[in-house]
Amino acid sequence: MERQRHQGMAKNTYMRWRLPLVCLLWEAAMIVLFGVFVRFGAEADAHWEEERREMNLTSDIENDFYFRYPSFQDVHVMIFVGFGFLMTFLKRYGFGAVGFNFLLAAFGIQWALLMQGWFHSFKDGKILIGVENLINADFCVGSVCIAFGAILGKTSPIQLLVMTLFQVTLFSVNEYILLNLLHVKDAGGSMTIHTFGAYFGLTVTRILYRPNLEQSKDKQGSVYHSDLFAMIGTLYLWMYWPSFNSAISDHGDAQHRSAINTYCSLAACVLTTMAFSSMLQKKGKLDMVHIQNATLAGGVAVGTSAEMMLTPYGSLIVGSISGIVSTVGYVYFTPFLESRLHIQDTCGIHNLHAMPGLIGGIVGAITAAAATEDVYGKEGFMKAFDFTGVYQTRTPSIQGGFQAAGIVVSLLMAFAGGAIVGGILKLPIWGDAAAENCFEDGVYWEVPEDEESDVYHMHNPDKPASP
Amino acid sequence: MERQRHQGMAKNTYMRWRLPLVCLLWEAAMIVLFGVFVRFGAEADAHWEEERREMNLTSDIENDFYFRYPSFQDVHVMIFVGFGFLMTFLKRYGFGAVGFNFLLAAFGIQWALLMQGWFHSFKDGKILIGVENLINADFCVGSVCIAFGAILGKTSPIQLLVMTLFQVTLFSVNEYILLNLLHVKDAGGSMTIHTFGAYFGLTVTRILYRPNLEQSKDKQGSVYHSDLFAMIGTLYLWMYWPSFNSAISDHGDAQHRSAINTYCSLAACVLTTMAFSSMLQKKGKLDMVHIQNATLAGGVAVGTSAEMMLTPYGSLIVGSISGIVSTVGYVYFTPFLESRLHIQDTCGIHNLHAMPGLIGGIVGAITAAAATEDVYGKEGFMKAFDFTGVYQTRTPSIQGGFQAAGIVVSLLMAFAGGAIVGGILKLPIWGDAAAENCFEDGVYWEVPEDEESDVYHMHNPDKPASP
Amino acid sequence: MERQRHQGMAKNTYMRWRLPLVCLLWEAAMIVLFGVFVRFGAEADAHWEEERREMNLTSDIENDFYFRYPSFQDVHVMIFVGFGFLMTFLKRYGFGAVGFNFLLAAFGIQWALLMQGWFHSFKDGKILIGVENLINADFCVGSVCIAFGAILGKTSPIQLLVMTLFQVTLFSVNEYILLNLLHVKDAGGSMTIHTFGAYFGLTVTRILYRPNLEQSKDKQGSVYHSDLFAMIGTLYLWMYWPSFNSAISDHGDAQHRSAINTYCSLAACVLTTMAFSSMLQKKGKLDMVHIQNATLAGGVAVGTSAEMMLTPYGSLIVGSISGIVSTVGYVYFTPFLESRLHIQDTCGIHNLHAMPGLIGGIVGAITAAAATEDVYGKEGFMKAFDFTGVYQTRTPSIQGGFQAAGIVVSLLMAFAGGAIVGGILKLPIWGDAAAENCFEDGVYWEVPEDEESDVYHMHNPDKPASP
Repeated sequence: MERQRHQGMAKNTYMRWRLPLVCLLWEAAMIVLFGVFVRFGAEADAHWEEERREMNLTSDIENDFYFRYPSFQDVHVMIFVGFGFLMTFLKRYGFGAVGFNFLLAAFGIQWALLMQGWFHSFKDGKILIGVENLINADFCVGSVCIAFGAILGKTSPIQLLVMTLFQVTLFSVNEYILLNLLHVKDAGGSMTIHTFGAYFGLTVTRILYRPNLEQSKDKQGSVYHSDLFAMIGTLYLWMYWPSFNSAISDHGDAQHRSAINTYCSLAACVLTTMAFSSMLQKKGKLDMVHIQNATLAGGVAVGTSAEMMLTPYGSLIVGSISGIVSTVGYVYFTPFLESRLHIQDTCGIHNLHAMPGLIGGIVGAITAAAATEDVYGKEGFMKAFDFTGVYQTRTPSIQGGFQAAGIVVSLLMAFAGGAIVGGILKLPIWGDAAAENCFEDGVYWEVPEDEESDVYHMHNPDKPASP
Repeated sequence: MERQRHQGMAKNTYMRWRLPLVCLLWEAAMIVLFGVFVRFGAEADAHWEEERREMNLTSDIENDFYFRYPSFQDVHVMIFVGFGFLMTFLKRYGFGAVGFNFLLAAFGIQWALLMQGWFHSFKDGKILIGVENLINADFCVGSVCIAFGAILGKTSPIQLLVMTLFQVTLFSVNEYILLNLLHVKDAGGSMTIHTFGAYFGLTVTRILYRPNLEQSKDKQGSVYHSDLFAMIGTLYLWMYWPSFNSAISDHGDAQHRSAINTYCSLAACVLTTMAFSSMLQKKGKLDMVHIQNATLAGGVAVGTSAEMMLTPYGSLIVGSISGIVSTVGYVYFTPFLESRLHIQDTCGIHNLHAMPGLIGGIVGAITAAAATEDVYGKEGFMKAFDFTGVYQTRTPSIQGGFQAAGIVVSLLMAFAGGAIVGGILKLPIWGDAAAENCFEDGVYWEVPEDEESDVYHMHNPDKPASP
Repeated sequence: MERQRHQGMAKNTYMRWRLPLVCLLWEAAMIVLFGVFVRFGAEADAHWEEERREMNLTSDIENDFYFRYPSFQDVHVMIFVGFGFLMTFLKRYGFGAVGFNFLLAAFGIQWALLMQGWFHSFKDGKILIGVENLINADFCVGSVCIAFGAILGKTSPIQLLVMTLFQVTLFSVNEYILLNLLHVKDAGGSMTIHTFGAYFGLTVTRILYRPNLEQSKDKQGSVYHSDLFAMIGTLYLWMYWPSFNSAISDHGDAQHRSAINTYCSLAACVLTTMAFSSMLQKKGKLDMVHIQNATLAGGVAVGTSAEMMLTPYGSLIVGSISGIVSTVGYVYFTPFLESRLHIQDTCGIHNLHAMPGLIGGIVGAITAAAATEDVYGKEGFMKAFDFTGVYQTRTPSIQGGFQAAGIVVSLLMAFAGGAIVGGILKLPIWGDAAAENCFEDGVYWEVPEDEESDVYHMHNPDKPASP
């Protein structure tokens, strides 16, 4: 009763009819649209046996499933456990972190299968799907999970679903422009996933600026065990990132190379993150926020170039720089963004995704511009950049220019899209919580009554948090 | 001392000689039986190089290992981390959940290799094993993990080992009847694993009915962090379920299709679960019990049909329905089963496995009955349902009837087997705890003395649990 | 302030300039060395398309990536999540366990790529790397993670980095002697990883003996939730160990066989561990320390022989014995080592890695010596032991002798290397903590101020730990 009164004070967060309605109507829409449009691609269809002979594949193992399924599962873990648990660092928002991430991603992958399908797998009025579509849907949702990080703890589940609907749509448009119109390479998504997702999320959180957020400041920190839960997320993201960046690369050497480059970049990133985390703190102690996040910047920053001939030492350099930039960001930029630009970035996605994503786009542009037939071999050169058909006349330096254009387009889409979606989310109908109830699971979740309670202060709002 | 007195009051839970004796004797029996019967199959034997040429396989990569090992590892994670951590939601039974699941599964896979081996891989007096046997052993043990969910917190480790011994045996007989005698398809085990496992477990817990269980009611709930541990189990089950349902499907399109169908079904299930979880609670708040469990019903419910041409939209429909049924089950059926039918179902396996398992069997029967050569292609049709040899005359509608018969047989085996095994487990020699000590790790485990103790009330039995 | 004073009493643990300096200089050195030496191997290079035809590979899927990448990812999880979380059992050292393991492994894999590369992948002045190198680098670092277990909680991050630098170097030398000079088989690393790593770590901790360590005795235990975090580590190690032992075995039957043998050994090990854990405790209760550790001994003990024709029942026997030896070790040997030999082994690596590693080496020697052409087939025999070229005249019994020699060499390298490195780490310049501050994250980490604090006693050093 105390709880109810306390939460009900400022805003109506009652979800009982609104959330079910949105979930059920949207799922019904998915069923109808899947019924009209989605079918199995050749390699997943029961006609495969006949198709296979036509495709001149000698063995069942040449089914794309065996090239991509293990990577798909790794990516899947990154989206649901990786992002989900990374955000459990907040002391009283673990249910929301894992649970809402679960909800938005489960909706998002369905909508992404449709949106991306219309753009990329549409044939004779049907979207034909296979394992690569599943990976791409997970990728697309990854950009939503990133944006979620900026508004974590401050939004209702309905707002998150609305954001997912729009962001997946915009992601697919942006991806189409980059991959199909600009003919840009971005297998690990430095531009399409990270730059777009992060600046989109930052714009949204700017629009949703809450001047009184310091009222829930005591809940914005972590406790000992919540930091360990977050490390589960960190490590799964870190370990599986080589799979992420290589998941949709060309079969053979490109997948192999992407994994190696990413492995190297991430390893270097850990060392520079630790170095700067200790160096930038007066007592010289390591900060779990940096270890949980900045160690991953190396994966973001080779997203575009991992499948290119970046080389292992190139990866070490990129990883080293991105770890430094990201850690410095946590120490100096995040407070600045909040106090001066009114950008309240709960998880610091500006440091983990935005800046490293830009680095990734730039490194990709440079690596592409520097490509030579000598380094790639004649066949490898064609294959790596797909300089066939209308793109036959492209040179590496032109490709580099288009890559750079891809960054700009992603940024514009993110700012414009984020502004519009932020405006929609600002409408007072979505059931977000009052400032003093942010970062608090009790608003949308049944929370168990712990004897030695983590949620103690919800029942005793008068008691100060840190003695 | 306090602890000892408290626990020793009603029942003798002293394990020191009984548990070691059972473990060591049974392991010795495994060694003898493996020594007599189990050998490497052709693809794992050092003679492979010669066999390979005879089998007309052109490359090492056509070894079944490469088709199935990644899926095997995903299934393995589901059994040990998935089921193990899913059950850690209880505030004081985390060690028992993870630890006893570990124990029974480690024994069960050995016994399953033998039992399933005799039925399916027996040649010239030897059981020849390969990676597919490992997957099937894990599957078989999965049904024991399910049954464990019903009796979680109320049984001794010896009871669990005894149940595993019998349940694996009965599972293998039931599986043999379904797959070999009825020629039923059930790659993801809606019938053999879920329906059988769940109704077996429910029957056992009915026989073991404890009228005074409300004495440990304060320990049947969760605390904040135990709910997050349980989400680790949930997410790994959810993410890897596509691997579960496709792990033993035919190479190529069937595996590919199973994964896609399961992915779709699970995504839809999350949305309907969230919708009903909020709708069925007066305050409209989400309940972690539903999110932890009902979101998985979509995987269970396409277990039989995932490798068939269920189609993505068909999967969305099945997943949506099963999420609703499962959530409604948690809210209305579980209390009813307990109060009226005296079925005390700790984890609610009736909602997560029993009902969705039945749905899965029925959907499988319908999908099979509706199969046409047009949809599957001539070759695909034969391959999908194995209508060769003595089964050449089977039509889809006959196959549908046999599929339905498979459900009935699984149910009968579960009820009869569960009743017998329940009767055996009721004998007063197995060392189960008294009602007031259920759901309490301290009975069978050395528990660390936390300062701010989760196990506080064990040392202070007089203090009430919820202030 | 209280905290600072308390920690600063005895020793200078200020890391602010030392740690960054080491991290940044060493990472710079890695970049230079990678720039000079490391390039992509043929299968990861963009020239692959041309190479492939020369290598007579018909399909992209014959790229080694597809044979090894799924196993690589499993091994990767074992190193970072497996070892990292296994060590989180300490109540106040979770950040250090996961975080320092992350740091040393991230540095170690880079240095291992170089060291192992010079020995094994050096061609025309360049180290050519592919997925197998990544696995081997992870393996090498595994031996450092093992040694870390012995000194957990007692060393500074700089000491760990210094140890990593030397241990990776010595590991690579020892591995070269065993694999190339003695022509020994050790795919799962019973000798090179476990025996070497464990005795190295034990020697180091002996040299670093701290007579006053009982001053931090209250922090050497676990709390309820830290034991559950540790089980995450245990289970991932246990589940993925079949991938570990098969990751670099020959394609085809050898990989397949390694996985099966390891699966069997681990399953048996769980039962004998549980049996002895209960039997050796007066109250007959299970001890989480044993379940967390001794259940893994079965994987260590078949490390050498898993790819040989050990047979499933042979694996059960080896697994059973190693579970017993390891559990007995925790109960009797660890206290003995500490009180009599002054070997303070925080995680009990003597029981989990040293003794089972020796068993593994011996079982490998016996299995090799007992090999016959009858059991392996003529081709399989040659392939399994590589009896070609200068080794054409080797017989199984001679091979067995060389295998045994491999154990002795590994032990000598471990003792000698450990003594030297221990001496270096004893220098008073590395910033390790005073005895009363061991096993305490607050020394090197920013620790959140929990209300119901796990780190309570750091702020209140006067209050006793266990009331």
